[in-house]
Order: sequence, then structure tokens, then C-alpha cells
Amino acid sequence: MDWGTDLWDQYEIIEKHTQSGLDLVEKYVKFVKERTEIEQNYAKQLRNLTKKYSPKRGSKEEQECRFSNHQSFLDALNEMNDYAGQRELIAENMMMNICIELTKYLQDLKQERKTHLSEAKKAQQSLESTYKQLDCSKKRFEREWREAEKATQHAEKTDLDINATKADVEKAKQQAHMRSHVAEECKNDYAAQLQKYNKEQGQFYFTDMPLIFNRLQDMDERRVQKLAQGYVLFSDTEKHVMPIIGKCLDGISRAGSNVNERNDSLALIEQHKSGFERPSDLEFEDYSQGINRTSSES
Amino acid sequence: MDWGTDLWDQYEIIEKHTQSGLDLVEKYVKFVKERTEIEQNYAKQLRNLTKKYSPKRGSKEEQECRFSNHQSFLDALNEMNDYAGQRELIAENMMMNICIELTKYLQDLKQERKTHLSEAKKAQQSLESTYKQLDCSKKRFEREWREAEKATQHAEKTDLDINATKADVEKAKQQAHMRSHVAEECKNDYAAQLQKYNKEQGQFYFTDMPLIFNRLQDMDERRVQKLAQGYVLFSDTEKHVMPIIGKCLDGISRAGSNVNERNDSLALIEQHKSGFERPSDLEFEDYSQGINRTSSES
Repeated sequence: MDWGTDLWDQYEIIEKHTQSGLDLVEKYVKFVKERTEIEQNYAKQLRNLTKKYSPKRGSKEEQECRFSNHQSFLDALNEMNDYAGQRELIAENMMMNICIELTKYLQDLKQERKTHLSEAKKAQQSLESTYKQLDCSKKRFEREWREAEKATQHAEKTDLDINATKADVEKAKQQAHMRSHVAEECKNDYAAQLQKYNKEQGQFYFTDMPLIFNRLQDMDERRVQKLAQGYVLFSDTEKHVMPIIGKCLDGISRAGSNVNERNDSLALIEQHKSGFERPSDLEFEDYSQGINRTSSES
Repeated sequence: MDWGTDLWDQYEIIEKHTQSGLDLVEKYVKFVKERTEIEQNYAKQLRNLTKKYSPKRGSKEEQECRFSNHQSFLDALNEMNDYAGQRELIAENMMMNICIELTKYLQDLKQERKTHLSEAKKAQQSLESTYKQLDCSKKRFEREWREAEKATQHAEKTDLDINATKADVEKAKQQAHMRSHVAEECKNDYAAQLQKYNKEQGQFYFTDMPLIFNRLQDMDERRVQKLAQGYVLFSDTEKHVMPIIGKCLDGISRAGSNVNERNDSLALIEQHKSGFERPSDLEFEDYSQGINRTSSES
């Protein structure tokens, strides 16, 4: 079963079907392009988010990074930034390996389809032209035999006419003979045209058009294969970066595990311990000593 | 090493540090909230994309789905839609398990910190008040002993004065004795106040404040632990859905592999085959037969 044999009379269907196939590829390219835009936008938002929450150089927040719970937030932000980079990579690879690749392929297919269809049209026109010649030739043959018939009847009638001269009879017979000769030539021409047409028609239906339709089928099957590869690439592109995205997530988990609350408490002590002793008891200030002294001296 | 012992004189540092810790939790919650918004937005865009490219019910595109290369695009779109659902799940789980949870925890911590700081303030004020009493008592003692001294000197002077009456001498001595007695009582009061103050100061620096500072340290360490858990949850939430996202991607790959270009060609044949035979040779239409007959009859 192939299009050349089984769809020999479905030129328009094949024309439409192959167009619809190219349309699907075009649609898929557009779909992937829009996905890459979403992905780029997503990555950009993630990058802006990490930037917004990362401490400025020399800021108070940066100094806080001596505490592990601050430092780990910064580490997580950095991993998020790498994560965003991987989403950008997905967008870029989809654009390169699917959109650009399929668009190029699509151009070639469009050209190829156009060539096949124009060859089919040319073959069709050639057959039609031959048919017209045949029809013309056939009609001339019909007309000439009618004329020859009339000339023959006229000659017979003249021959039977008692008033006709011998010269009249001879002239009518010669006319009839000439007409029959012309008609015979037209018949031969018609027979030759018919043979030519039948040969061309056979060539058209059994060789030329099947070849063109099968080429279109082959083209369409190649298109389908390429498109199917494009579907697989769509997920492969993302699967490819998933381990790296997994590593970014591991990095965030590790940042969380690296937080040490005890060390953070000790870091505060190290930074701010004055080293002073706590105040000891106030001493008794005995004003009465002076007085007692005076009293005892008195 | 603990804050109560080593940072006994760093109330303001501890106050600021615990505030900065709560600020970091608040900042982290805000960060995660913004991430969930990005994630929701991303998911929404993916959903809109799949909707835009999915065929309408009963449309020409839906009918094309008898062809595997059209059907697989639809399958890939459906997987993308599930994918978007997983991104939404990430956003929802981050919101529930990090933002809402940490916000609630933050409220409790703020309350707890306020309680500890106000207890510290109360203890400080109480010690200051006791000190004022001590100071007051000490000054009275000083003043009264000065008065007693003066009275004693006056009595001595009167005793040596040859113009003074016995009554004057007796009165001055009584006055001096009374003043000394009052001063003695003030001295005792001062001694009692000093003992009270020293006891309270010891309690303040060696028991009460260390306890409060250590509670603040404990609170801050719990905050750091909780925040660290929040960091880990941030990546765990996404790690949790990664296998399902992987399955969506596998589904897209499978959709690509399910495409069968040969079957698609045959489906077109099945749908559009007319079953007609290709045209056979045109037959020769011999107009001359009639004429020949006529000729032979003549």
C-alpha cells in the first residue's frame, strides 16, 4: 500500500495533507519558541530574586555572614542563581536544537513539496494537452468521413440521374474518391494520436504520478520522523540539565545542613566579649570613722 | 561559654543580634513567598501555552489526531500541563510548609523575645531602684554624722566656754548624744541597705541576667535551627516533585517515540482511498465503419 497506487486519484487530498503536515511542524516550532520565552522569563525572574536578596558589598548584611545561618542563606541564593542558569540553558538548547533546526528543515521540505507538486501539475497539463490533440484529431476524422460519405452519396445520385452528363458523373466520382482518401488519412492520424495518448496516459497513471505521490509520501514520512525527534528533544533538553538542577538543590540542602546554631552563638561571644569581670560587692563607706576618731581624741 | 556568662555586659548587642535574627527569618519568608509567586506565574504561563496549542473540541485539528504525529503533540501538551501542575504544587507546598509555618513560628519568637527583654529590663530597674535607696541611705548617714560631729564639737566648745551656764553645757551634751544616736541608726540602715543591694546585685549579675541571656541564646539557637530546616525544605519541596516531573518528561519522550510515520501514511490511504481503478486505454471510435458499410453496399 502506498499513496502512488492507492491514492492515485487523490491529488488534492495529498496536497492538503502534506500542507497540514508542514503546518504542524510550523506550529510546533512556534510552540517551542513560546516555551523558551517562558523559560527565559522564569530564569530572569529567579535571577532578579537572588540579586534582590543578596547582600550588597560591604553592607551590614554581608558582615552578618560570619553567622552560619546568614551565610547559608547566601549559599542558597547562589545555588538558585546557578539553577536559573540551567533554566536559561534549557531555553537556549531548545531554541538551537529544535526551533532553528526544524525551521531550516521546514524550508527544505516546503521547497521539496513545491517541486513535487509542480512536477505533478506539469505531467497533468502535458496529458491534458495530448488529450486535446487527440480530441481534435478525432473530430477531424469524424467530420472528414461525413464529408466523404456525402460525396459518395452525391456520386451515386449523379450516376443514377438520367439528365446528368458523363462529365458530371466522372467529376462526382473523382470528388468522392478524393474525400475518401482525405478521410482515410484523418483516420490514420486519429489512430496514431490515440496510441500516443494511451501510452502517455499509462505512463501518467502507472509511472509518473505514482512516483511523485510516493515521493510526497516519503517526504511526509521524513517530516513525521523529524517532528517526532523534535518531540523527544523537547524533553531530552530538560532531562539533560536535571542532574545539574538536582545538584543545585543538593547545594541548598547542604547550605541548610551547614548551619550550626551553637557556633553562631559562640561567634557572637567571640566578637563582643568585653573580658570585664562582673561587678563585685560595693564596700561599706564608714563616714563615722572620722567622727569616732574625733570623739576618741576628745 | 554562654551569653549569660560571657556577654553579661552586652545587653544591647544581644538585643540587636536577636532582632537581626528575627529579621533574617522575616526576610527568608519574604524571599520564599516571592519565589512561590514566580513559580505560580511560571506554571500559569505553561498552562496557558498548552491550552493555546491544544485543539478545540470538534475542530479540524482534533480530527487530525488520527495521525500519530498530531496525537503525540497533543500527548506532549497534556504532559506539559501535568508538569505545570507540579510547579504549582511546589509553590503551594513552599507557601504552606515554609512561609505560613515560619511566619507563625516568628510570631511566637517575637513574643518570647519581648518577654525575655522585658524581664531583663524589670530586673535592671529593680536593681537601679535598690541602688537609689542605698545611695539615699548612704547620703543620709553621711549627712547625719556630719550633724552629729557638729553637735559634738559644739558641746565640746560649750564645755570649754567659761561664760556658758551648766544648763547650756548639759543641753549641748544631750543634743550631741541625740545626734550621735540618730547617726548610728542611719549607719545601721545604710549597712542594711548595702547588704540588701549587694545581695540583689549578685542575684542580678550571677543569676537573673545570665538566666535571661541564656534563654535568649537558647531562643536564638532554636530560631537558627528552624531557619536551617526552612532552607532544607526549600530544596526538598522541589526534590519531592522531581520524580513526577521526570515522569512528565518521560511521557513527552514516549509521545515522540509513539509517532509512526508509516502508520500515518496508511491512515491517509484508509481514509481517502476511492477504490476506483485507474483509467484504462481509450478505445478507437471508428466512424468509417458506417461509410465502409455504405460503400460495400453500393
